[in-house]
Amino acid sequence: MNLPTFDDVLDAAKQIDGYAVKTPFLKAEDLSEKLDAEIYIKPECLQRVGAFKFRGAFNRLSRLNDDEKKRGVVAYSSGNHAQGVAASAKILGISSVIVMPEDSPKMKLQNTKNYGAEVITYDRENESREKIADKISEERGSVVVPSFEDFYIISGQGTAGLEAVKQAEEAGVKLDLFMTPVGGGGLISGCSLAVKALSPDTEIYGVEPEGFDDVRRSIESGNIEHNPRAGGSICDAILTVHPEPMTHKIMSDNLAGVLTVTDDEALAAMKYAWEKFKLVVEPGASVALAAVLHGKIDVKGKKLCIVLSGGNVDEETFKKALEK
Amino acid sequence: MNLPTFDDVLDAAKQIDGYAVKTPFLKAEDLSEKLDAEIYIKPECLQRVGAFKFRGAFNRLSRLNDDEKKRGVVAYSSGNHAQGVAASAKILGISSVIVMPEDSPKMKLQNTKNYGAEVITYDRENESREKIADKISEERGSVVVPSFEDFYIISGQGTAGLEAVKQAEEAGVKLDLFMTPVGGGGLISGCSLAVKALSPDTEIYGVEPEGFDDVRRSIESGNIEHNPRAGGSICDAILTVHPEPMTHKIMSDNLAGVLTVTDDEALAAMKYAWEKFKLVVEPGASVALAAVLHGKIDVKGKKLCIVLSGGNVDEETFKKALEK
Repeated sequence: MNLPTFDDVLDAAKQIDGYAVKTPFLKAEDLSEKLDAEIYIKPECLQRVGAFKFRGAFNRLSRLNDDEKKRGVVAYSSGNHAQGVAASAKILGISSVIVMPEDSPKMKLQNTKNYGAEVITYDRENESREKIADKISEERGSVVVPSFEDFYIISGQGTAGLEAVKQAEEAGVKLDLFMTPVGGGGLISGCSLAVKALSPDTEIYGVEPEGFDDVRRSIESGNIEHNPRAGGSICDAILTVHPEPMTHKIMSDNLAGVLTVTDDEALAAMKYAWEKFKLVVEPGASVALAAVLHGKIDVKGKKLCIVLSGGNVDEETFKKALEK
Repeated sequence: MNLPTFDDVLDAAKQIDGYAVKTPFLKAEDLSEKLDAEIYIKPECLQRVGAFKFRGAFNRLSRLNDDEKKRGVVAYSSGNHAQGVAASAKILGISSVIVMPEDSPKMKLQNTKNYGAEVITYDRENESREKIADKISEERGSVVVPSFEDFYIISGQGTAGLEAVKQAEEAGVKLDLFMTPVGGGGLISGCSLAVKALSPDTEIYGVEPEGFDDVRRSIESGNIEHNPRAGGSICDAILTVHPEPMTHKIMSDNLAGVLTVTDDEALAAMKYAWEKFKLVVEPGASVALAAVLHGKIDVKGKKLCIVLSGGNVDEETFKKALEK
């Protein structure tokens, strides 16, 4: 297993420079005061395609050789990786096919098509997206771009953590805690490589939706554990069924813990981000904020960075959050 | 009339450093592609208190001498200047009284109180906020902090433009156009000092709500013109009845033109910002974006920066925008 290291994150940062947005690192004044802590946010909803996923996808696709580029790419994703791959493919002049659950948020389906991808939908509960993607890959010779279990995807996502720690340093802040949402673990694995290299004492926490705590259980048991369900939470972006060997290994090595929040807590965090940060955050991207807001971790007196990982959310879901 | 200059904007930037947020300068990828232009946004909704107003208010209040600080401040505002003054006063340990229209957005009233200000409401159509503020000032000896017609307020707001032009330069971009919403003209006047000093060929446009085009008419006639009404548009933040001598003079010297948009166009721009930028923008803050989106100015082939000046908006109004 060829695991990425901090050097690979540094290399990814060079690779995506000029294409990805260097998202800001913002002090959450009201939240800091409310919780007697020093809290910063890293809003990846401001990233190209509205989610951190562009970082890894562009890093991966830009490494393809000319022959691979000609054959095109195929990816499966609930929507953010889909957009990341589709947008990167468009920039690089590569054709892309994206396999998406038929219940993906409409915005994600539409945006992926708008970036020029061919979209194929499937039934999240009864079909295997991996099998569909493999079949397309066999038929067309296209390169499969995994949503998290990939050397370049992980190191690409890690650039968000690299930026955050550097921005914290520029602001004279030594982070006690670094928190991100967790689906398959691509984001937090990559970020952990940068955070642990530059700031070894910073504790890293992941946050999952209640009932989808495969990563928490996997780290506890030491084996790759599965979620009983593939759908059923509002946090569509992070409903991965299980971690994979690479992310499982990196997370097991680097995470201080994994917390869980309910859908209602995620919706309330979305409303908080709307009201106080003036940011649009999607359900799955708000779970780390939700954990802090709902006291799942004691942050009193601590300096922490919360990653808001994306903002691709449909109107109906957003209105639900506003009603919280 | 002691008008601020570019040097005063530079001085204001030093004064607010470490207190105000250096807001990002973000490429609007989808909008650029849609309009065949290179479009950047300066999201002042991410500023402290959720609007650019903190810049000027902190610059003004931090210049008060010890005696003035003891006497406290009084300001009148529909809500964003209110929050800027209240938050600055809190940071500096000054007491503040804010005179606000009784129909101000609930969020603005509540936030102003939360920053520790004493809030006094008035009837926008039938009472004079200036008179109420003057009376308080007489009774209590407090210093009146105007919402735009002030040397330090104008130069403070100008730091948004200073940052934008510097950020454009860092990104290798020479702006053809710089656009902001216009109420009393504090923001665009201050910004114009920086933009014209650093990038003299950049054309500066203001945008007002239809029926509240006092600045457009004032520049055309050469006199200070009034709006027939004090309220009645959804763009509460920019319903100033007329410009004042300082802003009128600076705007007359520096603006290439003033455009107008309807309330519906502003709401549609709010939805666009929600969907594409993942930002919460209030009605009055979205008018420059609305002008670009609705073809009020030809931007084809141009490089431009649009200021999104604030994001303090109530749920009901935001839901209206989402339904556009």
